Amino acid sequence: MTETLKRLVIGRAMRSEELSGTLLPKRLALPIFASDPLSSVAYATQEILLVLTLGGLAYLHFTPWIGAAVVLLMAVVVLSYRQVVNAYPSGGGSYTVATANLGPSAGLVVGASLLVDYVMTVAVSVASGVDNVISALPSLAGYRVLMALGFVALLTAMNLRGVRESGRVFAAPTYLFTGGVLIMVGTGLLRWLLGDAPVAESARYGIAPAQGDASLAGAALVMLVLRAFSSGCTALTGVEAISNGVPAFRRPKSRNAATTLAAMGLLAVTMFAGITTLAIIAEVHITDDPCRLVGLAGCGGHTQRTVIAQLASAVFGGSTSPGFYYIQAATALVLILAANTAFNGFPLLASFLAENRYLPRQLHNRGDRLVFSNGILALAAVAGLLLYGFRANVSNLIHLYILGVFTSFTLSQTGMIRHWNRVLRAGTDPAGRRRHRLARAVNATGAVITGLVLVIVLATKFTQGAWIAVFAAVLLWLMMRGIRRHYDRTAAELAVTDPRAESVPPSRVHAIVLVSTLHKPTLRALAYARAFRPDTLEAVTVAVDQESLAALREQWDDFGIQVPLKILRSPYREITRPAVEYVRSLHREGAHDVVSVLVPEYVVGRWWENLLHNHSALWLKSRLLFIPGVTVTSVPWQLPSAAHVKRPIARAPGSVRRGEPRYTPRPRPAPDSPPSD
Amino acid sequence: MTETLKRLVIGRAMRSEELSGTLLPKRLALPIFASDPLSSVAYATQEILLVLTLGGLAYLHFTPWIGAAVVLLMAVVVLSYRQVVNAYPSGGGSYTVATANLGPSAGLVVGASLLVDYVMTVAVSVASGVDNVISALPSLAGYRVLMALGFVALLTAMNLRGVRESGRVFAAPTYLFTGGVLIMVGTGLLRWLLGDAPVAESARYGIAPAQGDASLAGAALVMLVLRAFSSGCTALTGVEAISNGVPAFRRPKSRNAATTLAAMGLLAVTMFAGITTLAIIAEVHITDDPCRLVGLAGCGGHTQRTVIAQLASAVFGGSTSPGFYYIQAATALVLILAANTAFNGFPLLASFLAENRYLPRQLHNRGDRLVFSNGILALAAVAGLLLYGFRANVSNLIHLYILGVFTSFTLSQTGMIRHWNRVLRAGTDPAGRRRHRLARAVNATGAVITGLVLVIVLATKFTQGAWIAVFAAVLLWLMMRGIRRHYDRTAAELAVTDPRAESVPPSRVHAIVLVSTLHKPTLRALAYARAFRPDTLEAVTVAVDQESLAALREQWDDFGIQVPLKILRSPYREITRPAVEYVRSLHREGAHDVVSVLVPEYVVGRWWENLLHNHSALWLKSRLLFIPGVTVTSVPWQLPSAAHVKRPIARAPGSVRRGEPRYTPRPRPAPDSPPSD
Repeated sequence: MTETLKRLVIGRAMRSEELSGTLLPKRLALPIFASDPLSSVAYATQEILLVLTLGGLAYLHFTPWIGAAVVLLMAVVVLSYRQVVNAYPSGGGSYTVATANLGPSAGLVVGASLLVDYVMTVAVSVASGVDNVISALPSLAGYRVLMALGFVALLTAMNLRGVRESGRVFAAPTYLFTGGVLIMVGTGLLRWLLGDAPVAESARYGIAPAQGDASLAGAALVMLVLRAFSSGCTALTGVEAISNGVPAFRRPKSRNAATTLAAMGLLAVTMFAGITTLAIIAEVHITDDPCRLVGLAGCGGHTQRTVIAQLASAVFGGSTSPGFYYIQAATALVLILAANTAFNGFPLLASFLAENRYLPRQLHNRGDRLVFSNGILALAAVAGLLLYGFRANVSNLIHLYILGVFTSFTLSQTGMIRHWNRVLRAGTDPAGRRRHRLARAVNATGAVITGLVLVIVLATKFTQGAWIAVFAAVLLWLMMRGIRRHYDRTAAELAVTDPRAESVPPSRVHAIVLVSTLHKPTLRALAYARAFRPDTLEAVTVAVDQESLAALREQWDDFGIQVPLKILRSPYREITRPAVEYVRSLHREGAHDVVSVLVPEYVVGRWWENLLHNHSALWLKSRLLFIPGVTVTSVPWQLPSAAHVKRPIARAPGSVRRGEPRYTPRPRPAPDSPPSD
Repeated sequence: MTETLKRLVIGRAMRSEELSGTLLPKRLALPIFASDPLSSVAYATQEILLVLTLGGLAYLHFTPWIGAAVVLLMAVVVLSYRQVVNAYPSGGGSYTVATANLGPSAGLVVGASLLVDYVMTVAVSVASGVDNVISALPSLAGYRVLMALGFVALLTAMNLRGVRESGRVFAAPTYLFTGGVLIMVGTGLLRWLLGDAPVAESARYGIAPAQGDASLAGAALVMLVLRAFSSGCTALTGVEAISNGVPAFRRPKSRNAATTLAAMGLLAVTMFAGITTLAIIAEVHITDDPCRLVGLAGCGGHTQRTVIAQLASAVFGGSTSPGFYYIQAATALVLILAANTAFNGFPLLASFLAENRYLPRQLHNRGDRLVFSNGILALAAVAGLLLYGFRANVSNLIHLYILGVFTSFTLSQTGMIRHWNRVLRAGTDPAGRRRHRLARAVNATGAVITGLVLVIVLATKFTQGAWIAVFAAVLLWLMMRGIRRHYDRTAAELAVTDPRAESVPPSRVHAIVLVSTLHKPTLRALAYARAFRPDTLEAVTVAVDQESLAALREQWDDFGIQVPLKILRSPYREITRPAVEYVRSLHREGAHDVVSVLVPEYVVGRWWENLLHNHSALWLKSRLLFIPGVTVTSVPWQLPSAAHVKRPIARAPGSVRRGEPRYTPRPRPAPDSPPSD
């Protein structure tokens, strides 16, 4: 049953050889790697406006300047990452770059902040997508959290099915959204040029300042503008995804990746600039609290539409026009699917960190469909919790966001400076040197600017909730170091140093059969124990009450059992303690011997039957394992119900289903995506 | 840490010999066994009034008649149980009586209904106690559920400490309550006789009928009166506790128990009749919905006091008088402690049912303090859930109540008729025959009347929530029969039929060492396997990827290991399935052989370290146990952290703490309370 359900949701299991998948053409790589940065233009403008209107309508004239700063920043980051793509054709994730050039601790900082950010990407994208669904269908407003969790579940299932299928699913919405937004921006600007400028539904409302009427000046004003800029920087999330994915591109990998990066940058800048311009023209007045809207009666039940919804409505003639619905549907779809960038990135980075022993090794196992299932499930769980905890509210979640992005931007660009320094020291060709100097200059600019933005974001958002992200990242960093230390210590402890000495068998074997009552399993255990030919053999029972002890002794004589019966008294009615103490005392007597404890057990098939039997055997076995020089042997007796337990369906090693291509096994599979961030 | 906390809450562990505790004098037996029936007079009158006022004030004149009927019923039941006490001096719980005279199925019906009722006793008593606390301190109204759960936790801790201590704790409040109520009733009646009748604070309110102004007639009126009577019958709960506890009395046991029963009946009847009379005199007007009170402004925030609170306030001169506080404190205390009757009864009955294999045997284990800890915890958990689910509301909970009481009354009285019939058939002495005939008549009357009440209760309360109790009891009954069947089947399956044949050792031993990587634990497992001198020995590895397989093979050669290495291919990256299939195939080859699977394991000491290691070994071991003819041996390797695991503190067999009496061990301990309901 469980198995059938699993197959329905995630598809048939795949053989390890099938990992050698297809490489991505640019037209598929763009939507797969860029759905996050492209879709984030859907909320970046809105976040700028939400901060500026904290001061009423007075400071909306800063919008174009802030927009321009974001565009400039985007250009710098894209240029910087083109250098990374060229320098690391094998996949220059920020984690790799930082580790290689700044050392493992810096790399781990990037790793921790990116893991946190991937979670945030899922939460923010899904929440924002749900917002847009609600803008189109306001009657769904009551189901916000439920819808968000449903979408996370859907994404999880899709990703458990594997990368290739999801790649195709993602191509369409990204293009539909990009096309739709470009047409909307074009139409809107054209109408403005023709003198028929679109007017947003919220243009008629004034906005009261959040802090009363006091107008801002000096430091407070600077802070407001910087906060608005920080919020607008959400447009940059996910830009680095392409640089991680270089090995997944078709040849020439670096060149194709750089071209895709440029195309992505151009599209994102155009869309962001267009939406921001249109929002200024149409006079979108949006605020975090609808009750501050001046001229609106009954603010309690009022739901403000998103900026993109207001623009679509204004440009295409009202909120019942097909154009409006098209934009809303495409936006919601692309935002929810944008979370997929994180569903690709998180498990890959986690697996890479697990391979480097910074995370539990379960995260490095590929599941049935050759994806890192545990990573996908972990991401979905944390993102789901976050959406639930923050009631899927974008504006609250967004404060936790982008901190990680800019940490990794800054550290990887700093790493790149070192990289070019090293290249310059080694290289001699003058043309190459000039090129490398230029690249270094680009990366240096990138490092300085993203570092500056990081400081701004930290300063303006820390108290708004960003401290949660900082705290989570620091915790994760400490945890990963602790895990690495544990694995290193364990490996050192377990490593074979002297194979001859460590293979010397124990001098004598003492076998002990634990007996509670004398039934078939006990007789079987005694028979097996004799078959193992130990040097000594005895049966041991823990006497909790006199009555059953007498009965046991009587049966022992009746059945003529030759094995001596040792009785351990237990005045406190415990089973484990006397048995453990006795085994420990035996071990003390012969330090080079082994004490082999045989435990007769009966095995039941139904889960509830387990509740009806004491689990003293299980507990006892687990305690015995802590004693050196002891082995613990379960001698099972299968009750009839155990026979009903379904045996796993054996798969013939070479079997494939009809209609599915038969892959030629390779000696060592080449992964279709690099084990990097 | 956990150990220290446990000792603080429940006290030092006790030796099995300490079970031979003290027998109870009557003055202690009365409060221990009768706190439930005595305390239920605190809410019985109120429940009658609540039903009658559903029809407004018009039907309050039925109160004395209903009260008289309850008193009569109480007398009949007490007389009936005096026969039981005489007939079953070894503890005539209804379960015993019904099983002995009507067969195990009828006994099980009594068992199931009593278990449900014990849970209800805890829930209703605690909820009612909290009600009285709130009547005295209205500011606590917001903490109703929290307080109720807190009291359940307190009772649990006290009962885990053991019966004797709690006996002493319970004596005082029961006497304080009984004394207080008798004084209150006396004072009130005296004031009435002197012409200064007390007037309840609610006397000035009218009550609007629940169904509009339509006055009731015919069947509807009869139904209302019967419902009021059913509610009043809560005064009878717990009457049978004394009959269960006969062996705990001092000699002459039966006589002392019968005397205590009579005293209890007399006290309960006096208190119930007194409170009811006083409530009529003082014109207490109480209703389930304060908004139906006529003459009260602002019903939303109004909290009605309990009947007993209103009476205490009226008799002793206002709700700030010391008398009022005394009555409220004593009532709250006795009600909460009354739940203790159930805390004594439930674990004992559950243990007895478990001994008869109707419930999981864990319920038959005595804990550290010689009480049935698992039963106490189960009762507390279910009662806590019920209190939480019904928001600790007495009137909602009470509908689920008393059904079980009357089922067990009826069945045990019917059983007693059979009992006397049998005695009469055997006996010859004419004086004895006359006495037995009289006893049979008493029990027959009891059976008929309680049966009638059971029908009335079922008819009037089924749709009010009693169906939940019926459903739970039926479910429990079915479950207990299923459990018994499982245990019987298992016992038959495991019973030794032919000790010689079943002790024949297997013909050959095949040893298999499961290997993943070649570290110290693996070498140790290989060395141990050789020490066990099997007929064949091989190492088996499941090859998930080529790389690690190659590394393993290389090390195998480097270390010069003589054991052959068998490689199982696993294209789907599973570990368990190929290993299980291979072992199964070995078993098929030699049906009379045993396959001994050795699993090298490393043992860590901290719980979180377990998260960092794959649990494939654990899962694999549990699957292997389902294969016939297989033994599974864990060869542990203790990592350094495992050495930090605290070894259990050994107790010297004869050690007792200073100041504690040293008990002389007896050959077989006589329980201080009988294993019965």
